[in-house]
Amino acid sequence: MAAKWVVKIRFQNRAETILCPSGANLLELLHQHGHSVYSPCGGKGRCGKCLARVRGRAGTVTASERKHLTQAQIDDGIRLACQIQVTGDLEVDLSPAQQLVILADGLAGDFQPDPHIRQEEIRLEQPRIDRQHDCWSRLQQQLGCREAAPEALRRLGELSRKLDLLVTYKGDKVIAVDDGEAGKEKAVPYSIAVDIGTTTVVLYLINLANGVQVGAYAFANPQSRYGADVISRIDYTINHAEGCRELKQTLLKALNEGIRHLASRHGIDPARIYHAAVAGNTVMLHMLLGVSAAGIANAPYVPVFTDGLELSGRELGLEIYPEGLVELLPSVSGYVGADIIADLLAADFESEKWRLLVDIGTNGEIVLGNRERAFACSAAAGPAFEGANITFGMIGAPGAIAGYQVEANGEISCQIIANQEPKGICGSGLVDIIAALYSQGIISSTGAFQEGRAEGRLAEYLGQRAYRVIPGKEIFLTQKDVREYQLAAGAIAAGIRILMKEAAIRETDIDRLYLAGGFGNYINPESAAVLGLIPKTLLKKVVKLGNGAGAGAKQYLLDRGAKARIAGLKQRITYIELSARADFQEHFMEAMFFPEL
Amino acid sequence: MAAKWVVKIRFQNRAETILCPSGANLLELLHQHGHSVYSPCGGKGRCGKCLARVRGRAGTVTASERKHLTQAQIDDGIRLACQIQVTGDLEVDLSPAQQLVILADGLAGDFQPDPHIRQEEIRLEQPRIDRQHDCWSRLQQQLGCREAAPEALRRLGELSRKLDLLVTYKGDKVIAVDDGEAGKEKAVPYSIAVDIGTTTVVLYLINLANGVQVGAYAFANPQSRYGADVISRIDYTINHAEGCRELKQTLLKALNEGIRHLASRHGIDPARIYHAAVAGNTVMLHMLLGVSAAGIANAPYVPVFTDGLELSGRELGLEIYPEGLVELLPSVSGYVGADIIADLLAADFESEKWRLLVDIGTNGEIVLGNRERAFACSAAAGPAFEGANITFGMIGAPGAIAGYQVEANGEISCQIIANQEPKGICGSGLVDIIAALYSQGIISSTGAFQEGRAEGRLAEYLGQRAYRVIPGKEIFLTQKDVREYQLAAGAIAAGIRILMKEAAIRETDIDRLYLAGGFGNYINPESAAVLGLIPKTLLKKVVKLGNGAGAGAKQYLLDRGAKARIAGLKQRITYIELSARADFQEHFMEAMFFPEL
Repeated sequence: MAAKWVVKIRFQNRAETILCPSGANLLELLHQHGHSVYSPCGGKGRCGKCLARVRGRAGTVTASERKHLTQAQIDDGIRLACQIQVTGDLEVDLSPAQQLVILADGLAGDFQPDPHIRQEEIRLEQPRIDRQHDCWSRLQQQLGCREAAPEALRRLGELSRKLDLLVTYKGDKVIAVDDGEAGKEKAVPYSIAVDIGTTTVVLYLINLANGVQVGAYAFANPQSRYGADVISRIDYTINHAEGCRELKQTLLKALNEGIRHLASRHGIDPARIYHAAVAGNTVMLHMLLGVSAAGIANAPYVPVFTDGLELSGRELGLEIYPEGLVELLPSVSGYVGADIIADLLAADFESEKWRLLVDIGTNGEIVLGNRERAFACSAAAGPAFEGANITFGMIGAPGAIAGYQVEANGEISCQIIANQEPKGICGSGLVDIIAALYSQGIISSTGAFQEGRAEGRLAEYLGQRAYRVIPGKEIFLTQKDVREYQLAAGAIAAGIRILMKEAAIRETDIDRLYLAGGFGNYINPESAAVLGLIPKTLLKKVVKLGNGAGAGAKQYLLDRGAKARIAGLKQRITYIELSARADFQEHFMEAMFFPEL
Repeated sequence: MAAKWVVKIRFQNRAETILCPSGANLLELLHQHGHSVYSPCGGKGRCGKCLARVRGRAGTVTASERKHLTQAQIDDGIRLACQIQVTGDLEVDLSPAQQLVILADGLAGDFQPDPHIRQEEIRLEQPRIDRQHDCWSRLQQQLGCREAAPEALRRLGELSRKLDLLVTYKGDKVIAVDDGEAGKEKAVPYSIAVDIGTTTVVLYLINLANGVQVGAYAFANPQSRYGADVISRIDYTINHAEGCRELKQTLLKALNEGIRHLASRHGIDPARIYHAAVAGNTVMLHMLLGVSAAGIANAPYVPVFTDGLELSGRELGLEIYPEGLVELLPSVSGYVGADIIADLLAADFESEKWRLLVDIGTNGEIVLGNRERAFACSAAAGPAFEGANITFGMIGAPGAIAGYQVEANGEISCQIIANQEPKGICGSGLVDIIAALYSQGIISSTGAFQEGRAEGRLAEYLGQRAYRVIPGKEIFLTQKDVREYQLAAGAIAAGIRILMKEAAIRETDIDRLYLAGGFGNYINPESAAVLGLIPKTLLKKVVKLGNGAGAGAKQYLLDRGAKARIAGLKQRITYIELSARADFQEHFMEAMFFPEL
């Protein structure tokens, strides 16, 4: 009989012990025992999401883990569950998987969920003929709440013979009442964090009783049928009388399907979801409400609103508890949205030290700030980092070259998503390839291919000077591709310089560099630093936020102090419109060249 | 050619001059010229509602006016428009018709509408590329509001090219935005006061720009198909699983039809109604929300809620502006409802002097208080005053004997509604008849018919000793009817005495007696005093409130200070449950006997 090892699993308030065979994969083991650990890549070591704090014989840290974890995390015992084969007794703490971002900041040990939605078991005083206080005022007396949702009164009426009640409330307002004798288990409150991206929407379902993420669900934003990018969707609303309503309904329908799907997967009634926090770019939030975003499409790029908003599920049409609260996080400007505010919440911008956040997608949003002042801008990077306008560019899907290194001996190693036959190059691969070519002198600091340095791998492709990325494969990086990269990266690097200029600080004043967004999560910071996309001096200060927007929205739900911090952030951020800056072109031109090696 | 007289009409902010033929009826003249003066009796001098302040040759004050107006009102020039034939030039001020109650308290001159819903014309600052503040924050800056309804943001998006806006807001919250160039006329805001009685529902449509009542509409409460009284309706909800929902929907449907009808009659879009204040008894308010009122049906008579509530039109399902605010006024207890709180608002309970309010319907609700303390009770009077359990009893409909006097010479004069052939006796007639019989000695102070005092008009009817009310007519008042009256009136009079005992005051400490409710409005106070239904010493202090509940709800809409006054009232009222008082029976027995003449 094979050896059995004892794996002790800790999950915030819960602990369990599993006996398992030697050699079992830890992530699979967790899934088999009902722990829904978020692992979007399916356990292939690519997404870096299945975090766990592990003690015991967990084997050596793999290359994949080195790629996704900071040294601080590794020192703290954080591992990727998918990379561990059980070969001895283990103690596994899953809270890092739920608190990804907070962990990255080393705060996990201190973090206690403090959700907005709270529950209390109440025993009402028996009414008497000479003291016939109504049910609601007796409840108020015990709980100190001052407002009641009509639905809560309705339930209170149904339960009027009961004295033991389980009351769900937010702040001053009772939102639900349940029979207290039925037990707390039956009425666990949930909330949902929503990150509405132009391309992808992600929902996170949170158990508010213990602060644990029950599950997550991502789906393509169905508005893409109206246009892949925000500008073409805005155009649709301008050219169609009912366009705003149509885009709203399209998104809302998909959100409701997603909520139903996620809830049913975990055996939860959607009417038990009492709170939703929504992050997303400014245009997506306008479209969620059916508010025209036309003002954002053209100068002076004016949105209708940037404030946070509170509305009920019923009011929005979101199919959670009808009187549940939906909160849209605030934005900064038309191009620095609530997704960035959520990033900042997931990061830590409450320090006296300066911190820099770069969220790279179609635009690169950049925030530089500390607890007193902050500056934000949006750099029109264009979609090069998402594979568009690059000859062999593609999104980060199976077959994409996502990592690329040339060893000292000239040997090439590259990482291809899903280990398939390579089909093209995604954003992180693009940065790696160009950095490798620049390091070897195949590309000059101005971005031009250097004749005779590529050992026969420079060729022509579609009339362009081009580099064959993998010997024998028909995948090329052309001169034009390098120029596209330079334009995109130059805009971001120039944005960073202008913010530093505004703040009147130097690189050495910056204490931490947060990388967020899909691309920011997968990029190899060394390569980015080689090319000057991020300042080289900040390489040791990089913290990857992962999906910072989703993490921030989750944190918002679990932390009653977050609202005030967000309000403070919004207030102290000065938005810098790069296109209105006389010095932008100059910084942009400079930033397009690669720094000295 | 007949003489033409000049009639100048004043209407708060508006004045107009009409030339009219001699002998024209003033009320008809007003209607012909588009003034919708509330006159539910159709100009017959019975309802006392068509108030106007008149200067000029308006003829002598009629008996009907003496019945409906206080001496103070008459001295102030107040008349009933239906009673005036134009025989000379007149100046007519219609504001008393809109401010019935306030006038009754002599405050009309000071009253300036101060509605919760306000409008302002705003010119937004032009956005610039280097100051791209969003539309909402520029609006906020100018208006000082902090919240926006999603619908307002939607309109702001539609109007994002406009700088001139007409903004409708309540307190801190912008609820609607219109094109400022379209002019204020197009976007006049309205509100609606709702009085939900068990039997009758009344809607009042108010123009918030000038505080004027545009029109009113009364209809039968369609819930009566589930039972005429609150107890049988509550029984229905107890015996039918969906009963609460059904009763709610029935009422809501009728309210929405009523709103549509009233709005269309005055050419107004219901979506321009931004605010609704709802008064009604406690059971009706529970039923409006679909909240079970079962606790109110039996001891200890506990309602689910008595606090005031705020919800949106959308949330309640009331078809006004979806984000418009619906406010349910607070109640005191299961049997002292928001209708009584509205009465108190229409009356003046903010004085240092003690005041007494009696609202007579199926129950008699009584409040005794001043600005420091107040006591309330509900006396189970039974439906005798509404004609039930009285042999020839009927409601105040055409053919009902509503007034009755026996002159010194023995001559009988009586007032029959609509001057039809008499069919029966309504509440006010019942009090008049019994008072007349007691004054003549036909009934003793214990309520027994006295043999030989009725000059041949005492007879037998259905085995009961009975009095023929009108010679030659088959309408009798039986001994049992007198007993029914004594039980009903005794409960009310005992309630008044117990409240005085609680407050430790005497009749002479009471400065004003407000009579409210349908019956309180029509009753002849002299007859009520003769029978001891109200203390004789208070006869000179009677102020008739009319539909105090409706008037209070209207005042709530037009007076931002009302909410705080109501909260103060609710807090200082001590509810006295008469059935729990050991001394009730004793007072009740005493109060059943008529006082010395």
